[in-house]
Amino acid sequence: MACVRSVGRRGGVQFFSVYYNSKSLLMSSMGGSADENLETKEMNVRSLSSSNGQEPYVHKVGIPPRQNLFKEFQSTVKETFFADDPLRSFKDQSKSRKLILGIEAIFPILSWGRTYNFTKLRGDLIAGLTIASLCIPQDIGYAKLANLDPEYGLYSSFIPPLIYAVMGSSRDIAIGPVAVVSLLLGTLLQSEIDPIANPVDYRRLAFTATFFAGITQATLGVLRLGFLIDFLSHAAIVGFMGGAAITIALQQLKGFLGIQKFTKKTDVVSVMYSVLSSAHHGWNWQTIVIGAVFMAFLLSAKYIGKKNPKFFWVPAIAPLISVVLSTLFVYLTRADKHGVAIVKHIERGINPSSVKEIYFTGDYLGKGFRIGIVAGMIALTEATAIGRTFASMKDYQLDGNKEMVALGAMNVVGSFTSCYVATGSFSRSAVNYMAGCETAVSNIVMSVVVFLTLEFLTPLFEYTPNAILATIIISAVINLVDYKAAILIWKIDKFDFVACMGAFFGVVFASVEIGLLIAVSISFAKILLQVTRPRTAILGKIPRTTVYRNIQQYPEATRVPGALIIRVDSAIYFSNSNYVKERILRWLMDEEEQVKGDYQTRIQFLIVEMSPVTDIDTSGIHALEELFRSLQKRDVQLVLANPGPIVIDKLHTSNFAAMLGEDKIFLTVAEAVAYCSPKLAEDP
Amino acid sequence: MACVRSVGRRGGVQFFSVYYNSKSLLMSSMGGSADENLETKEMNVRSLSSSNGQEPYVHKVGIPPRQNLFKEFQSTVKETFFADDPLRSFKDQSKSRKLILGIEAIFPILSWGRTYNFTKLRGDLIAGLTIASLCIPQDIGYAKLANLDPEYGLYSSFIPPLIYAVMGSSRDIAIGPVAVVSLLLGTLLQSEIDPIANPVDYRRLAFTATFFAGITQATLGVLRLGFLIDFLSHAAIVGFMGGAAITIALQQLKGFLGIQKFTKKTDVVSVMYSVLSSAHHGWNWQTIVIGAVFMAFLLSAKYIGKKNPKFFWVPAIAPLISVVLSTLFVYLTRADKHGVAIVKHIERGINPSSVKEIYFTGDYLGKGFRIGIVAGMIALTEATAIGRTFASMKDYQLDGNKEMVALGAMNVVGSFTSCYVATGSFSRSAVNYMAGCETAVSNIVMSVVVFLTLEFLTPLFEYTPNAILATIIISAVINLVDYKAAILIWKIDKFDFVACMGAFFGVVFASVEIGLLIAVSISFAKILLQVTRPRTAILGKIPRTTVYRNIQQYPEATRVPGALIIRVDSAIYFSNSNYVKERILRWLMDEEEQVKGDYQTRIQFLIVEMSPVTDIDTSGIHALEELFRSLQKRDVQLVLANPGPIVIDKLHTSNFAAMLGEDKIFLTVAEAVAYCSPKLAEDP
Repeated sequence: MACVRSVGRRGGVQFFSVYYNSKSLLMSSMGGSADENLETKEMNVRSLSSSNGQEPYVHKVGIPPRQNLFKEFQSTVKETFFADDPLRSFKDQSKSRKLILGIEAIFPILSWGRTYNFTKLRGDLIAGLTIASLCIPQDIGYAKLANLDPEYGLYSSFIPPLIYAVMGSSRDIAIGPVAVVSLLLGTLLQSEIDPIANPVDYRRLAFTATFFAGITQATLGVLRLGFLIDFLSHAAIVGFMGGAAITIALQQLKGFLGIQKFTKKTDVVSVMYSVLSSAHHGWNWQTIVIGAVFMAFLLSAKYIGKKNPKFFWVPAIAPLISVVLSTLFVYLTRADKHGVAIVKHIERGINPSSVKEIYFTGDYLGKGFRIGIVAGMIALTEATAIGRTFASMKDYQLDGNKEMVALGAMNVVGSFTSCYVATGSFSRSAVNYMAGCETAVSNIVMSVVVFLTLEFLTPLFEYTPNAILATIIISAVINLVDYKAAILIWKIDKFDFVACMGAFFGVVFASVEIGLLIAVSISFAKILLQVTRPRTAILGKIPRTTVYRNIQQYPEATRVPGALIIRVDSAIYFSNSNYVKERILRWLMDEEEQVKGDYQTRIQFLIVEMSPVTDIDTSGIHALEELFRSLQKRDVQLVLANPGPIVIDKLHTSNFAAMLGEDKIFLTVAEAVAYCSPKLAEDP
Repeated sequence: MACVRSVGRRGGVQFFSVYYNSKSLLMSSMGGSADENLETKEMNVRSLSSSNGQEPYVHKVGIPPRQNLFKEFQSTVKETFFADDPLRSFKDQSKSRKLILGIEAIFPILSWGRTYNFTKLRGDLIAGLTIASLCIPQDIGYAKLANLDPEYGLYSSFIPPLIYAVMGSSRDIAIGPVAVVSLLLGTLLQSEIDPIANPVDYRRLAFTATFFAGITQATLGVLRLGFLIDFLSHAAIVGFMGGAAITIALQQLKGFLGIQKFTKKTDVVSVMYSVLSSAHHGWNWQTIVIGAVFMAFLLSAKYIGKKNPKFFWVPAIAPLISVVLSTLFVYLTRADKHGVAIVKHIERGINPSSVKEIYFTGDYLGKGFRIGIVAGMIALTEATAIGRTFASMKDYQLDGNKEMVALGAMNVVGSFTSCYVATGSFSRSAVNYMAGCETAVSNIVMSVVVFLTLEFLTPLFEYTPNAILATIIISAVINLVDYKAAILIWKIDKFDFVACMGAFFGVVFASVEIGLLIAVSISFAKILLQVTRPRTAILGKIPRTTVYRNIQQYPEATRVPGALIIRVDSAIYFSNSNYVKERILRWLMDEEEQVKGDYQTRIQFLIVEMSPVTDIDTSGIHALEELFRSLQKRDVQLVLANPGPIVIDKLHTSNFAAMLGEDKIFLTVAEAVAYCSPKLAEDP
């Protein structure tokens, strides 16, 4: 056999390297150097009219014009990091114009601000007031989740929205503290510092984490690594969010039942234990009554809003109303004397500076950094999901990387002004959209309201019972448990469902970090599985066509006797080249077992449909050669159909095309079959 | 717009979850539950004869018979872990037969032993003697690389080959210590324990590492995780091997130049420094003379073997000859008195037991474990590469996982009998093959010779100059620098070349571990790139056919005015769904920019060719929906061509098919175009 001989010619100790790369050397040893080959690239048009009746016109498999290395490299980089072509608008503009465009790119407000008008303002005003009424009680509650004093929640709803309004490009997102991130931050931080025993250091670490969360987000944006967050699959997010919601709701039982001493852990087991163990003496019936009443109120408000979109504002302002009413009630009845826990004190005045509080040295720096990355990534995922959803609803484009820079800058500035990690809130963004917001101005309106609250209204919250905050949070997060989505995921993709449930149970029974870890690792496992075990399919001819399709999908498709047509459904890379080779050979063996003895239908041609093979690397080429050689030994001819541009190019540079015989590469399966069938006929 | 309205119907705070999973809810909100839909799966055959001239027969896109969940899961697992169908031979056999087959599966010698005959024995005998003559001097040298006494090299060529002969299934591989693994083990071990200061603990750690290397290999085999080593791409291995060879050769300068004090580091810089710094006084000219002479001898022997395969045995036995001659020479001239370093002493007798020397407790356990895993993996990669190459040359099947179990068992037993990590040697395996080995018996022959050497001949090595060992190693490893392969890799795949060079320079300038790390990470980066940024292509009609192909590859292909045909070249998963969506929209925008104003050729249909889209997950479905909605806003119709079995199934379960309209899914692009073109014609 040609290639074996050509190897046989090499000898002695040096030989092993020949073997080690026998494949590569084989290639150069037959058909000479690859360069010789370059001019033979264009395959000449052949007509098989002689060899069979229906005179098919056989087309040459085209080779794309060769790109020079730099171009190739450039295009790869572009597709990877600048897939969205952010500089599109800068093309052929004057220098000054470019500068202006650049500034506008960083501060979109300059571009949309020019066209801003009264009608838009009205929409934004209404929306802004609505989300403000929703965010104030939520902020106070969420701050508790992060083990911070209530005012820090409000701080985080004042500065960050302003920054985002100037730099962000989403029109519907509502910025501020959110439940999941608050919980995540809370758990991560208190595993380092005890918030009760050492509140100052705890807060300082919180700001440090916020700072690095911002840095992480901005960096990802600047380095155009936005696609990294795509590695957290939708299914995983659904599971994670659901789990987080359950965990958050369980945490609220403390406030809702008026329990004094409550576990620090967040997993369902220890929470339920400390709830039940305190059942006899630890619960406070007055608190429960208040909580229950307003829970009923909030849920019915929500029901109304759900039934009739016109009343979307009912559930939106219900929380504020219940805060006002419950506060009044407690104030009048002095229920706090009967063990109903109240907010007591919210620091008056706007955000103090916290620049000096951030740890830029010491071993808290590292901890803050670690926590910041995690919190930053999650916040990013949430914001991006919201941004994309609304962008696709209103059909405007969002530059993911630019968004990240905006969010990052917002959190960095936030960390200097006593805010903790803020991001886009699902609930408030939805309300914002429903209330008819037009631009990010609604965020400005909201932050103005928060400002006024901080300046003048904080004393009014003194008698607000914690039970109400708990109730508001529960009724808010309950919607994060998206069982409908879970069911759909189950229907569509079982593997996704595993990721979803893994994340869910990980969060509920272990902790947020564990859940997150599970989600990410399952997502990666899926990718690896995809690249190691690509699908292959046997093709058959669809009646009354020249189309060849998977016979599993089209049972009516008829197979060509004497020829086995296999489609490989993936790029052939080192990670799967061996599998692909062996899988094809196994198809062949199964086939031969079936037609054993019957010489008529003995397989003489193996046609590999390469359409889905978008790329091939050196390992892939070697696999093809090994396949070719095994087939030669079996006296089966290898035929290729429709290799793509990159593949055909590499088949030539590697000389495999020459080794195989260029007349065995066809444009379509149909033509490959047309080439084989006459030879099959000739056979005894 | 239908879907937007149907979302609009939901309101209030609950709303945000609608948004967050708006896509999924959308699906269930239109066309009702997915189950309703199952009976509408079969798309009825439509004829477009009315709408255009050529009366194309439109075929329904088939949906494969629904597998139940268990079957689905089962087949996935099978393809992942049992792709090679190892139980094939066990099918429908009697219990007793199964037992026998099982035993034979573990000890293949039982099956091929039965048919063993004299002719085979002759071949094996010759081959065995040849590799023995090659391995003995190599073993002594390689042991030095691992900072162990020479006898340990010989030990490792005695027991492991025996075990492999009984359990292994490759007929050509020659087992024993090899250069790269010895070097790797040496560097890893001496970073933990100083071999000169503390030889006993060092040796114990070596055995521990060997033990865990064996365990790792066996475990991978048993758990059918053999495919994991495929993640080290061929390119990376070429680079790594080349780098290791250079490093090893440089290490030999110590022995070759007779330098007394030599650096512990392996990177080229520090090695060259300590070589040059010792140039004036540190070198020993007698040593250099001996080395140079025999180097010339070995290289010319190699040249002869290369020129004429008949003389393959010349380079094979040259090392032993040069050992004998040089030893004699030194003995007669007593050159050792003039500073020519000699082997001095090799322990006489066969392997002592080392069971008690292995660290099963203490903190060396962990270190041994870590080192063992790395060394085990590399040894595995080398052995597998050899096994596969020869199997494909002689065209017999190798069960990779079974091989791993054999290699693992061999190293575990080895670790109990004072051997260090052994594996398949490229050089000796090649010679083995050339010498006409028939079965693993050649390994037994070799180990018998080694046994005799250990029992009787060790004293003869007393006066063997280290320079010779250095020379032998240099001339052996030089072939690992496979520049031909590197050039070919450069030609075929630039990215592979980067991996190759990364590994090479990592090893040469930093250390073996670093090189390995670089190789693996670049390989992974490639995979991630592949799954995040799949290719897309614009298709055109090839003249005189109904075939649509990439217009970059086929410049003659003509585009259909008013319709944009895009092929997506990968499964659509969470990792790329967003990119795919945005990329398609960008194609459309670029297109619209070009035809701006010209209403005639305004794009009205976007045909997505789905042939290469082998799978889609929930994120992918969402991306399609977002695409669908954005297109609706642009008043462009989305049309799908040839979705695969899994995809079409998921399009239905997710109700996207209903949302899109089932009459917009076609078997081929040609039919999709046939459906669009008349509508385009009607247009003003």
